[in-house]
Amino acid sequence: MKKPILAAAAFSLLSSAAVQAPAQTGPAQAERLRDAALKDDVAFDIMEGLTTEIGPRLAGTEAEARARDWSVRKLKSLGFSNVHIETYDMPVWVRGEERAEIVAPFPQRLAVTALGNSGATPPEGISAQVIGFNSLAEFEAASDASVRGKIVFVTHAMTRTQDGSQYGYYGAVRRTGPSVASRKGAAAIVIRSIGTDMHRNPHTGVQMWAQGATPIPAGALSLPDAEQLQRMLKRGKPVTMRLTLTPRNIGVRQSGNVVAEVPGTDPSAGIILIGGHLDSWDLGTGAFDNAAGVAITAAAAKRIMDSGRPRRTIRVVWFGAEEVGGNGSDAYLAQHKNENIVFVSESDFGADRVWRMEPGLAPTNVAMVDRIAALLAPLGISRTSLPASAGADLGDWVRAGVAAFDLQQDGTRYFDYHHTPDDTLDKVDPEQLRQNVAAWTAMLSVVANAGEPIARTSSAAAR
Amino acid sequence: MKKPILAAAAFSLLSSAAVQAPAQTGPAQAERLRDAALKDDVAFDIMEGLTTEIGPRLAGTEAEARARDWSVRKLKSLGFSNVHIETYDMPVWVRGEERAEIVAPFPQRLAVTALGNSGATPPEGISAQVIGFNSLAEFEAASDASVRGKIVFVTHAMTRTQDGSQYGYYGAVRRTGPSVASRKGAAAIVIRSIGTDMHRNPHTGVQMWAQGATPIPAGALSLPDAEQLQRMLKRGKPVTMRLTLTPRNIGVRQSGNVVAEVPGTDPSAGIILIGGHLDSWDLGTGAFDNAAGVAITAAAAKRIMDSGRPRRTIRVVWFGAEEVGGNGSDAYLAQHKNENIVFVSESDFGADRVWRMEPGLAPTNVAMVDRIAALLAPLGISRTSLPASAGADLGDWVRAGVAAFDLQQDGTRYFDYHHTPDDTLDKVDPEQLRQNVAAWTAMLSVVANAGEPIARTSSAAAR
Repeated sequence: MKKPILAAAAFSLLSSAAVQAPAQTGPAQAERLRDAALKDDVAFDIMEGLTTEIGPRLAGTEAEARARDWSVRKLKSLGFSNVHIETYDMPVWVRGEERAEIVAPFPQRLAVTALGNSGATPPEGISAQVIGFNSLAEFEAASDASVRGKIVFVTHAMTRTQDGSQYGYYGAVRRTGPSVASRKGAAAIVIRSIGTDMHRNPHTGVQMWAQGATPIPAGALSLPDAEQLQRMLKRGKPVTMRLTLTPRNIGVRQSGNVVAEVPGTDPSAGIILIGGHLDSWDLGTGAFDNAAGVAITAAAAKRIMDSGRPRRTIRVVWFGAEEVGGNGSDAYLAQHKNENIVFVSESDFGADRVWRMEPGLAPTNVAMVDRIAALLAPLGISRTSLPASAGADLGDWVRAGVAAFDLQQDGTRYFDYHHTPDDTLDKVDPEQLRQNVAAWTAMLSVVANAGEPIARTSSAAAR
Repeated sequence: MKKPILAAAAFSLLSSAAVQAPAQTGPAQAERLRDAALKDDVAFDIMEGLTTEIGPRLAGTEAEARARDWSVRKLKSLGFSNVHIETYDMPVWVRGEERAEIVAPFPQRLAVTALGNSGATPPEGISAQVIGFNSLAEFEAASDASVRGKIVFVTHAMTRTQDGSQYGYYGAVRRTGPSVASRKGAAAIVIRSIGTDMHRNPHTGVQMWAQGATPIPAGALSLPDAEQLQRMLKRGKPVTMRLTLTPRNIGVRQSGNVVAEVPGTDPSAGIILIGGHLDSWDLGTGAFDNAAGVAITAAAAKRIMDSGRPRRTIRVVWFGAEEVGGNGSDAYLAQHKNENIVFVSESDFGADRVWRMEPGLAPTNVAMVDRIAALLAPLGISRTSLPASAGADLGDWVRAGVAAFDLQQDGTRYFDYHHTPDDTLDKVDPEQLRQNVAAWTAMLSVVANAGEPIARTSSAAAR
């Protein structure tokens, strides 16, 4: 990747004389910052520290609190201003024992994990016949009588894509399957994990009980175990499972967001709000999801900071409680919605390279998009007309009409690790991580220093 | 692969008129059998059935007994003769709870599993400081005082190879590390799993306590967890682990070998003894290790059987208790050592393609090797002068001077799954499995029908 980047940099040095912006914040400066970021070690250092010294950090737990304290120390040591924690309270659900066992006709254990907010079985588990469905639609169409008292198994056909777009559709098996099962009177539900790997590490993830649905035990089997269960069911004999899941609701606890700033020179120009989420699921150490996002955004902001004070304040927020329902972003929005936040961008899709940009600026700001696109092209990033939507933590701002920009990461292997024990530091490719920092640095350099106003988007309501 | 095979088959049809062996057992027949085996479904069917309907089958347990009964039914249904079980008694060790947790300075769980014959901690575990070593040699050189009362962690640098040859050297960390730790007075030992993957599934495996060594808790961390622990230790603060492993010795139980035959026409020509092992570790469903081996050998023997009675009896043995110490092969050798077994071959290295042959025939039988090599070349199998050694179940016969032949399988990914929960059917590539059956069918066709005597090897003692 180095060669084309250097060539492009050389070319733009020749042509930069024609550009009007001040030299220290113009394209040549942005290119220098971008190319220097390809040697970044700050992002990896943050990831390594957070995943090693804290590890799993489930929202509302003591581990997430330790992560916040760690983050404050780290962000201060990196030189950020106004580093602080903003707390909020939230109900907390924690995992218990987890065990799935085929009792008959083919006795053996299956790898299972509870989905977020799963109900609990008694400590000795429940035993019931398994009824299988090939899709959520097939399950929804089944009569209540056919599933009553049974353990429902729902599989699906999620495939691997670069943009991760299958998650939206097949994620519904996890998000709504448990509530459907509860409404139909099932004893419990186990789904094929929402993932693309073939390892015996089930994928957890949140699900919210629909209005009126009584919590029942809800788990995910690893993909090999889901296929094993399908082979058993295909043989036509009744299959009995003993399922033990003993999660607990431990009441209201404290969570929080960690905030850090790069102060700008022009308070009237508005605030740039970026970040990822600090919490993680409890099974892995949350490297891809989402130590990467907090690391990338902070490393890029630090590069802008170290190159001289930008025009606009850059505020980095490491959100709490994204995984379990977005309590951190909700609290943040409620508290800060009246501030002059003019632009948001979020990193929450792993540590692999950025492959495409999805701009979310008003038509009057098209020149900014052009400048960003020119800086990103040498990094192998395609320009698209897909609109930015940010992610779970900053999407509400976009929907409210705030300008945004998505640097879409390659999701080819994201759902191999997502929400599993396998989301660990060893999966991170430092070179791809550096490319992320370079892309973010380039984008921030433009957005934080743009001389023109950053407008609200007119199409916000239509999205 | 099809094209070169068909071309080779056509060529040999033209040239087979010059060969003296009867047409039905000559090269053309062997080629036809070989090529037909490339469409084999029998091996996959055996693997699918055994891994699905039985799953994990630890030696001496009720699951292994169910596997024997399943095997008898399957081998009878395939048309084999003299299908029966030969039992023996053995001491049995079973896994209990397993949990490793860093207590300080970076509290979090690590993925651990007990090694075979591990001692037990109390139910609440033991807590001790961790002392880390970069190699078995470094650990062996350490003073007893430095490790006394501590939890020893030994890592290593095993790498991926096609022939799996790193297992011999680095496997010593598992095989002898625990005894060294016991002798030095360590409280327990955890090793970096002997494997090449990067998933949070630790690799179990047997280890035998050296004479006089008191059993202590002995576990393996998954590779990502081993690296996590290394990162913690590197920070220089004392690291405390709480380790809970509660395996038990449950006394003497029954195990057994399953035997099936293809009767030959000439009892004086000796018996061909082939097979793999039926038992598996308890974590996975034993697909690569070793449903593949029993499936490949039986499928090939069936193809010979279905093509007409061979000259020599082919005896297929699915051994019990290979994983935990070879009790099945020991019992078999003791009972059958005086029979006229003239040739042995074993399949116990997964389900991936055969890439090289290692002949173990006497110099007087070089023409047989030539015939086998000619049949295997179109399957992409190289001829080498490495001597056959069979494997854990038939190696003793080779060392005693019985002729043998190794069809070496590609081990590139073997140690990704070996002894882990991930050793499941989904890892099997049916095309590579078929190539195994084709190679075995070709070899068996030559060996079972060879008109010449199969000699004992002269170099046996030297090995």
